[in-house]
Amino acid sequence: MFKPVRNRNPILRLNPPQVLAVGFLIMILAGSGLLSLPIASTAGHSMPYLDALFTAASATCVTGLSVLNPGVDLSVFGQVVVLALVQVGGLGFMTVATLIALAFRRRITFRERLILQETLNQHSTAGIIRLIRKVLLYALVIESVGAVLLSLRFSFEMPPGQAAYFGVFHSISIFNNAGFDLFGAIEGRAGSLIHYVDDPLVNLIAMPMILLGGIGFIVIADLLSFHKARRLSLHSKVVLSMTGILIGVGTLVILIFEFTNPATLKPLDFSGKLFASIFQAISSRSAGLLTLDVASMRQATQFFIVLLMFIGAAPGSAGGGIKVTTFAILVGAVLAMIRGKQDIVFFRYRIAPDRVYKAITFSLLSFLMIVVAAVILSVTEHYSFLGILFETTSAYATAGMSMGLTAQLTPFGKLMVIALMFIGRLGPVTLAFTLTPRMDSEPFRYPEGKITIG
Amino acid sequence: MFKPVRNRNPILRLNPPQVLAVGFLIMILAGSGLLSLPIASTAGHSMPYLDALFTAASATCVTGLSVLNPGVDLSVFGQVVVLALVQVGGLGFMTVATLIALAFRRRITFRERLILQETLNQHSTAGIIRLIRKVLLYALVIESVGAVLLSLRFSFEMPPGQAAYFGVFHSISIFNNAGFDLFGAIEGRAGSLIHYVDDPLVNLIAMPMILLGGIGFIVIADLLSFHKARRLSLHSKVVLSMTGILIGVGTLVILIFEFTNPATLKPLDFSGKLFASIFQAISSRSAGLLTLDVASMRQATQFFIVLLMFIGAAPGSAGGGIKVTTFAILVGAVLAMIRGKQDIVFFRYRIAPDRVYKAITFSLLSFLMIVVAAVILSVTEHYSFLGILFETTSAYATAGMSMGLTAQLTPFGKLMVIALMFIGRLGPVTLAFTLTPRMDSEPFRYPEGKITIG
Ligand SMILES: [K+]
Ligand SMILES: [K+]
Repeated sequence: MFKPVRNRNPILRLNPPQVLAVGFLIMILAGSGLLSLPIASTAGHSMPYLDALFTAASATCVTGLSVLNPGVDLSVFGQVVVLALVQVGGLGFMTVATLIALAFRRRITFRERLILQETLNQHSTAGIIRLIRKVLLYALVIESVGAVLLSLRFSFEMPPGQAAYFGVFHSISIFNNAGFDLFGAIEGRAGSLIHYVDDPLVNLIAMPMILLGGIGFIVIADLLSFHKARRLSLHSKVVLSMTGILIGVGTLVILIFEFTNPATLKPLDFSGKLFASIFQAISSRSAGLLTLDVASMRQATQFFIVLLMFIGAAPGSAGGGIKVTTFAILVGAVLAMIRGKQDIVFFRYRIAPDRVYKAITFSLLSFLMIVVAAVILSVTEHYSFLGILFETTSAYATAGMSMGLTAQLTPFGKLMVIALMFIGRLGPVTLAFTLTPRMDSEPFRYPEGKITIG
Repeated sequence: MFKPVRNRNPILRLNPPQVLAVGFLIMILAGSGLLSLPIASTAGHSMPYLDALFTAASATCVTGLSVLNPGVDLSVFGQVVVLALVQVGGLGFMTVATLIALAFRRRITFRERLILQETLNQHSTAGIIRLIRKVLLYALVIESVGAVLLSLRFSFEMPPGQAAYFGVFHSISIFNNAGFDLFGAIEGRAGSLIHYVDDPLVNLIAMPMILLGGIGFIVIADLLSFHKARRLSLHSKVVLSMTGILIGVGTLVILIFEFTNPATLKPLDFSGKLFASIFQAISSRSAGLLTLDVASMRQATQFFIVLLMFIGAAPGSAGGGIKVTTFAILVGAVLAMIRGKQDIVFFRYRIAPDRVYKAITFSLLSFLMIVVAAVILSVTEHYSFLGILFETTSAYATAGMSMGLTAQLTPFGKLMVIALMFIGRLGPVTLAFTLTPRMDSEPFRYPEGKITIG
């Protein structure tokens, strides 16, 4: 769509997704180098390079799957490397994805297209710099507020220095939907936020931060200007309502399925049960943090979480998956077909057929990728099929939860999961950028043929 | 699409899928009544009604899932009831599905539509009777040839009377892709065709019969007139090539995945391995007969078979699933999108967008149905998730294989599987008939809105 203006510098000749891919590769390689230094580990010697690579990829792609326990096995140096990768990877991704999303929403006139072309390729106009500055500003404000609040909460139970460090680390990890945590470092404490399952403060700080990191910059900006504009864009309406529906349905399903499970909800009082269900419904779609042990859940819940991970967060956010807007179009297509309607209509706007087409194809490709990876891993890994499907979905959707396979992966399995995280992070945005039918480039069209389906 | 001509007789006011649904319901209820008689069982007393209902539903929908061992637990009377349900259910379905498929291929002019309307609603014109006669003739010829060949083969190892009975029973079961067998009746013999895994005769008789039952009447008729017409329809080309591709890929995957599995392929010599892999690749998509023990296969193979079952056979055949043509459109959509093409083109014909839309929506609905059922069953049944997914896919796609859950289903689970078989058999053809956008009935269209995906 945006044919790059030929530039003598090969880096400047790349389109935004290519910039992102090259940037991520460099970050992952540099990060793995740093993490494989002896000073990155607490063991006194360097970790295997494959584990360093896995950790760097997981951090850069803000996935959160981990072959090691970051709180225990990583030194403070190692933890800071992970945090830096999360911050740069998360915000870098959000910025470029927002850029692409805005470009696609706006594209109408040739003039605008020219401007955008310049914007995207010359990295020089004021618009793009203003946008990047705005995204970073919003992110840093949210992260700072989160860090202060979390530090205060953690100071109830740990020394101020550690509380501040934990506050900053987890604020960045939570907002970028990265799923990394340091709680394995505390003696006798399970990982992630399991200890805080019914803690109102941690829940009430973490949940809005996950949501803000997952609804995308466009929606945040739209919400911030709502007092002036008095209306939301169609995109924001769809993202917000679908997010609301998924949280509502997710909470209800998790609550019902796990209500009597002694390993998860049963020991909690009702408000604890409710906090845990809401948190899991919000976090599963991309944050990857837990307040319940996912390995102890019932199979039905585990599979339901696979579906939530697959759907994921909003476009232009730190989250992954096929995205709530894509899912909304799928649901809309099924409903329109059942009701015999020609158009998919959201909030009195119909969705263009090429957009519907794209959403469906993209979902199919994602499904295919996850399923093929699951079939291959069930040859190489000794693990339950559901655990493998959970792992491949979690990696591709950069969700970050695991039923336990991550820690037992074979070297081949590790490489496979690294590849899935990378493809799952960059594939969607690349497809969104490149996969537009070249209407004008087809010299003639074949006649229409009929085949029977169903 | 076909508004019924108002008729005073309420039966004649039904459209073809409704006729099919009512007919199937009557058959299942009558069949369950007969099967719950004491003379239907070998136990000397009547079987539980729910088991009779399950067996009648499985036979009528030519699925083959079974809560009992037909060779052991059913008397000859019971077996004949099952066989009658398979024959009437299988051929009845093929006939109506062919009718609908032809109607959809032909629909162009208003005049033709009127003729078809009459055809479909009045059950009186010559065309429809000729068509039904032709379908039945083809089916009976194939079944008779199959019965003679199988009887000859079975006469090597059993008395002539039993050989003839087994020949007729299995010929009808195989051609209708029903999946029922009587081999459990032979002392110390595993069920289905496992005993014949490397028997060239049984393989070479059963495989073409499964294929003929699964490619649909339209393709068979097309092939029979090939010597005159010197060309195949687009529909037949797509069905035949996709069937070929699926058999090729299926054979290869099963051969590779199971090559070293001591419970399946390992003990066989290479020709045995090849026969077993080809047979399983052909049978999995809807016949439901086995020459390998599916419960002993590796997880990767089992999941791969879930995918094959989901794809299923051709429209207007005895087989189920989303159909090979639907799958071809899905693959075409992904390929067209990746290559940046506007049209899905098969054999120099492009596929109309509304057809693509329908294929995709229908696949999504099927996927949803199977997944929701799997989630519910993983609450009610104690079984591995893969085993549950295998079961729900097998039921919805009327494939008929099981990893072992069928025999252990709770009463609720049995009802659920019965419902899935019924919906899976009638849903697709009903959707194909009814789900056409009512273009002319929408007074106005909403303006186009843009949301971001990916
Ligand atoms: K994550
Ligand atoms: K079957």
